[in-house]
Amino acid sequence: MMESHGGNIYRAARELEVPEQKILDFSASINPLGVPQSVAAAIRKHIRYLYHYPDPDAGQLAARIGKKYGINHESIICGNGSTELIHLVARALKSAHAVIPAPTFCEYERAVKLQYREKKITIRHPLLDGSNSFDINPDHFINAMEGCTLAFLCNPNNPTGRLIERKTLLGIADAARALQCHLVVDEAFIDFVPGQSIIKEVETNPYLIVLRSMTKFYALSGLRLGFGVFPLSLVETVKRHKEPWTVSTLAQRAGIAALDDAAYKKETLKVIREEKKFIERELKRLQITYIPSAANYYLLRIEHASTIVRLLRQRGILVRDCSNFVGIAGSYIRIAVRSHKENSRLLKELARVCRASS
Amino acid sequence: MMESHGGNIYRAARELEVPEQKILDFSASINPLGVPQSVAAAIRKHIRYLYHYPDPDAGQLAARIGKKYGINHESIICGNGSTELIHLVARALKSAHAVIPAPTFCEYERAVKLQYREKKITIRHPLLDGSNSFDINPDHFINAMEGCTLAFLCNPNNPTGRLIERKTLLGIADAARALQCHLVVDEAFIDFVPGQSIIKEVETNPYLIVLRSMTKFYALSGLRLGFGVFPLSLVETVKRHKEPWTVSTLAQRAGIAALDDAAYKKETLKVIREEKKFIERELKRLQITYIPSAANYYLLRIEHASTIVRLLRQRGILVRDCSNFVGIAGSYIRIAVRSHKENSRLLKELARVCRASS
Repeated sequence: MMESHGGNIYRAARELEVPEQKILDFSASINPLGVPQSVAAAIRKHIRYLYHYPDPDAGQLAARIGKKYGINHESIICGNGSTELIHLVARALKSAHAVIPAPTFCEYERAVKLQYREKKITIRHPLLDGSNSFDINPDHFINAMEGCTLAFLCNPNNPTGRLIERKTLLGIADAARALQCHLVVDEAFIDFVPGQSIIKEVETNPYLIVLRSMTKFYALSGLRLGFGVFPLSLVETVKRHKEPWTVSTLAQRAGIAALDDAAYKKETLKVIREEKKFIERELKRLQITYIPSAANYYLLRIEHASTIVRLLRQRGILVRDCSNFVGIAGSYIRIAVRSHKENSRLLKELARVCRASS
Repeated sequence: MMESHGGNIYRAARELEVPEQKILDFSASINPLGVPQSVAAAIRKHIRYLYHYPDPDAGQLAARIGKKYGINHESIICGNGSTELIHLVARALKSAHAVIPAPTFCEYERAVKLQYREKKITIRHPLLDGSNSFDINPDHFINAMEGCTLAFLCNPNNPTGRLIERKTLLGIADAARALQCHLVVDEAFIDFVPGQSIIKEVETNPYLIVLRSMTKFYALSGLRLGFGVFPLSLVETVKRHKEPWTVSTLAQRAGIAALDDAAYKKETLKVIREEKKFIERELKRLQITYIPSAANYYLLRIEHASTIVRLLRQRGILVRDCSNFVGIAGSYIRIAVRSHKENSRLLKELARVCRASS
């Protein structure tokens, strides 16, 4: 069965009849440094308090986020991963006319489509052009927003890794406001390009929503943690649709510890920078085409992509089959940036299976 | 501000300017033994794997649940607390005509109301009669289901603690099938009355859904874990509405460890049985009227309930203000069964504030 997301080591382990720990997962793009020690310690310390319900408002975490980014903590809503917030926004804003570029993360479309019967919904998909590194055309995107009430942009985009520059993005956000179309900017991977976030602009744009994930950069995928920054005028509407207690006590404490861990952040940026240099050099040597990426993953252009995915999988290596991304089916795979040893192994195996299948 | 749920020690701690650990919380009904040691160990062991996404299907946990209760694991959907599943059912079944008794847990009504504009929704509220210990009248409930497509029953009921006997409940479930009305039985507190669950009956009744919580009996409120058992004919529809990865890796591992811990279960049932005897004896002595309860909490009939709640709160003791439960506002509070020392303290303070306010 086709996976709609990367990172399912459990299914792979069952199929290959190996322990989950034997799977080398390049299909999810998670910080290879693993869970920060400070975060692991915070989790251990708070196990005893699981007896109590979590703070439904995640008050301390929201305050810490607010302080970190210089934003009003009342504009912050924490979520069980940013995925909860994607669905929450779709439910709260209930838009039948939405804009979602292609290719991009699939949950936006899924969330929008769950609100109405299929027939009632129009989704415009500005196509990102592979011959132009899948960069967004701002004018096309702005045109598409006309007459729509909700638009999603993932920045850097998943699965391409392409960044929309701040200035361009702020232009799109201004247009969204003028068109009265709510623009959701999903900054799930923005921590890998610090300084490019537009999180502070929400305060002055009532049509801008910014979502953040803490599972990629802080290696907390299994714990689930994200947050959204909403215009104050929308907060009440969104909270009316929120289920109580979605963010566990451990996720809240982990989030606070993670934001305090400056050393982990510095080390991560260093490791990722170095590994990206290594991967790019090797891909060039192997004559494998890649899309230059602002994030911790690469979209590779590869013939017989499904075959490559399958051959790697047989060897316990998962890469992201991109065949369910609109517009790039069949000739692309996505790989995460992992540790040097793991990246070396992947590149070696990749060279082997590319030779074998050509 | 009125709390819509118990268990918010965070707000109380802020208001009283004391550490959260100083709050004595009788407003949430959680096993006083705290997190099982086996579960704490499982959580600690799996922190390092938070690097990976959780298994979106919670496959191992579902298999363990299936084995424990003798049910098909494919009929099980795990949730981020049973609250996720209440909202998931409401979204998947999208009923504009529902039956919800009063008083009961407030999220059923909230979940139903989020699906449509207020005007489109009819909710029938069969009133549970205080002069009859708030026991349900099965005929009234069945009559109310006529023309409706969704009904909720909490068993034992929250906040009354009253149990619907298996035989009576199965009669209601049969009627639901005949009326083609989906009946959701929320067994969040059924672990305190083992043997009364109707979880195995889902297999033979396509209109029956049973929800279970693992946060009350296993003291995992802060971690969030529940599961639902669905007719196989409904599983696909429900999953279509489910967000991915809602159940964290730690919750999945905690659930497996909890189900394996027979000693904790035995000890819990013993402690709760003894403390309930103690509490009932003391309440009689204090001439405080209580509703006989099948669960680990009691609904107390008390004059000037809001004043009592406030006076106890000033002393760092939270009890459940029931003023937002339909039908019992003003004259009831709910108290959890906790450890002997804590129960003694509550009863002493309760006697004091009752005297002071009368």
